[in-house]
Amino acid sequence: MRAGEDRVARMALGMLVEPGSRELGVLVRNVGAPEALGRAVGGFGVKPALAGAVRARMRAAGVEGSADLAGQLAEQMDGLAERLGARIITAVDEEWPAAFDDLVRASREGNMLRRDTDPPMCIWLRGPLRLAETLERSVSVVGARAITGYGGYVASEFAYGLAERGWTVVSGGALGVDVTAHRGALAGGGDTVAVMACGIDRAYPAANAAVLEQIGAEGLLLTEWPPGTQPHKTRFLTRNRVIAAATRGTVMVEAGSRSGARSTLGYARLLQRSAMVVPGPVNSAMSVGCHIELRQPGTVLVSRVEEIIEEVGSVGELAEPIQGAGRPEDVLDPLQARILDAVRPRRAMTAEQIAAVAGVSGRDARRSLPLLEELGFVVSGPDGYRLRSTPRAPIGEEEDR
Amino acid sequence: MRAGEDRVARMALGMLVEPGSRELGVLVRNVGAPEALGRAVGGFGVKPALAGAVRARMRAAGVEGSADLAGQLAEQMDGLAERLGARIITAVDEEWPAAFDDLVRASREGNMLRRDTDPPMCIWLRGPLRLAETLERSVSVVGARAITGYGGYVASEFAYGLAERGWTVVSGGALGVDVTAHRGALAGGGDTVAVMACGIDRAYPAANAAVLEQIGAEGLLLTEWPPGTQPHKTRFLTRNRVIAAATRGTVMVEAGSRSGARSTLGYARLLQRSAMVVPGPVNSAMSVGCHIELRQPGTVLVSRVEEIIEEVGSVGELAEPIQGAGRPEDVLDPLQARILDAVRPRRAMTAEQIAAVAGVSGRDARRSLPLLEELGFVVSGPDGYRLRSTPRAPIGEEEDR
Repeated sequence: MRAGEDRVARMALGMLVEPGSRELGVLVRNVGAPEALGRAVGGFGVKPALAGAVRARMRAAGVEGSADLAGQLAEQMDGLAERLGARIITAVDEEWPAAFDDLVRASREGNMLRRDTDPPMCIWLRGPLRLAETLERSVSVVGARAITGYGGYVASEFAYGLAERGWTVVSGGALGVDVTAHRGALAGGGDTVAVMACGIDRAYPAANAAVLEQIGAEGLLLTEWPPGTQPHKTRFLTRNRVIAAATRGTVMVEAGSRSGARSTLGYARLLQRSAMVVPGPVNSAMSVGCHIELRQPGTVLVSRVEEIIEEVGSVGELAEPIQGAGRPEDVLDPLQARILDAVRPRRAMTAEQIAAVAGVSGRDARRSLPLLEELGFVVSGPDGYRLRSTPRAPIGEEEDR
Repeated sequence: MRAGEDRVARMALGMLVEPGSRELGVLVRNVGAPEALGRAVGGFGVKPALAGAVRARMRAAGVEGSADLAGQLAEQMDGLAERLGARIITAVDEEWPAAFDDLVRASREGNMLRRDTDPPMCIWLRGPLRLAETLERSVSVVGARAITGYGGYVASEFAYGLAERGWTVVSGGALGVDVTAHRGALAGGGDTVAVMACGIDRAYPAANAAVLEQIGAEGLLLTEWPPGTQPHKTRFLTRNRVIAAATRGTVMVEAGSRSGARSTLGYARLLQRSAMVVPGPVNSAMSVGCHIELRQPGTVLVSRVEEIIEEVGSVGELAEPIQGAGRPEDVLDPLQARILDAVRPRRAMTAEQIAAVAGVSGRDARRSLPLLEELGFVVSGPDGYRLRSTPRAPIGEEEDR
């Protein structure tokens, strides 16, 4: 009963107050959601701006501050959710991710962001997955809407690779990196969650209607805003805190200097999640934001899916180091390498001549050359040593030097 | 006289011992160059390997350990230098860069590199510039030999930009990034120094003969190795310590996972010079080495010439932050931005309706809307407010959100 009362109050507050409000969050934590609702609606013990905002919403919705306002609103909302094939969850539901609590601390520390970042009050969901469970191993992949072929390639490959390895891909359902990441995750047979900045009844942007429909059928569509809400610029920024909080880390793929994806990365850092960035060409405007972020402390460059998983995975999920193809001469010690460097392909040289060229003692040359012969690097003849006829590539054509 | 004796001993040692030898460096620092030469030639007080190496070189050169060996060798060398239009300098010369001393400490700490990294004993130079002065404000630009168009673009632009701003560009005279950086510096009207791993008489690689000739005429060609010396793989690695030590920082542009340029960057770090790396596409094999390095602590990502100069320049030479084009709405505070977001382009809305959509109080809306009108964002009419007819781009088409 107490939980039920709490739930309907949170639902009503989610409807009446724009998400993220720190004032409301503090009040709910101090006096509980039902009492907080009563105060917000009655206009006592809250600031005039909050009271006025609630009043404006109530007037627009044609509801009045009755004793059972919460019950009425919640009933309306549950009915609407059912018609839309959606469900509503709040902090009292089992499906609610504990990770959202981290936003309380962020809200306290985050004043420099000039933005309220309190946890969501209630969430609308559509899709067959259980939210908390789905987010347990999740990464957000975010970035620009106007992407290049390169950004599309990276978003797609990374999301596919994460999905293949059992990681949920979270993004914002927008054009560009977002939708490419969602598609990549679906293609990889993985779970994907789209965190929207509008009502669950809106397919925004319209160009993504089909894939959003698919996410609602196979993954999860998620929003804090009630049905009918339009996406606004400021709502995208408010929404971004949820993307960061929901996941173990955020990967930013292609972002211009003013990309909103940078705010998601900022939230990830603030929430002590892993803030990962994919670099790109320095002459691409769509990577400028990435490189600015990579010059900040606490940002990790990722160039492969394995490196993302090393960041967000459990101990032991380390990326294999990249190794160039091994070369036969890798087995040599520096002295042997120096001696081998002095041996010529055609002209045979004595051990003493080789020693003089290499700058080693005759003794070192005489001891090392038979070993180099045994290893197949040099051959000996009556006039001395020369390189084997299948020599290494000439110096000028090798990468290593 | 003492300085003259020191100089000829160093020249002889530079001829008889392969560069970088820590044993020789310690000996010279302890007993002076003339005594160190005597011991190395006489084979007492040095390890057998060093004595043997000197003996092999002397035998090959047809010289004997006479009392005036140093004088004879130095005379030969000075004569040869004159014929080649070159000059020889050692630590006792004014032109000698003090920065090379840092290699003493690196040599001590650098044993994990399995490589001797002592300072040069003597240097062959060709070109009109004074070495120490030329290196005062210098940056090395290094990287792969097999570069892509991207790497060529970056090496060229960065070297040109550094030269234009009065910075000397140092590199290794090789194909790829090296020669592109030298050419960029020359094109930018700046000084450039090529640090070679072969004799000053060799144009290596042959494809770069013309530009090496130009560097010898307008910049500086520099090498530790006496004329006639061939470039060897191990010599490139030994040479790289000089590139790192000579400059205030090293910029790595395109490098495969096994690129030798990574060793230059490692020396820069060891020498507490700035280790800078240019990122690239994560799907380019020629940027793999760059991204590996960028994941190491102590490496700085650079995407513009200004960022390089911020690293190596004096206090105050800070790069201007990159700003996207300013937008009119940048002047708004978060509350005003939220209210503006709720205003529609065609349908006029009252302040109360706008407040309900934005989730603010009617009072806040009534106070902010006249200001938004004054700033030119909205217009008012008999039915309320709507967006001005030259509205901002629709949300879906903006980068920022």
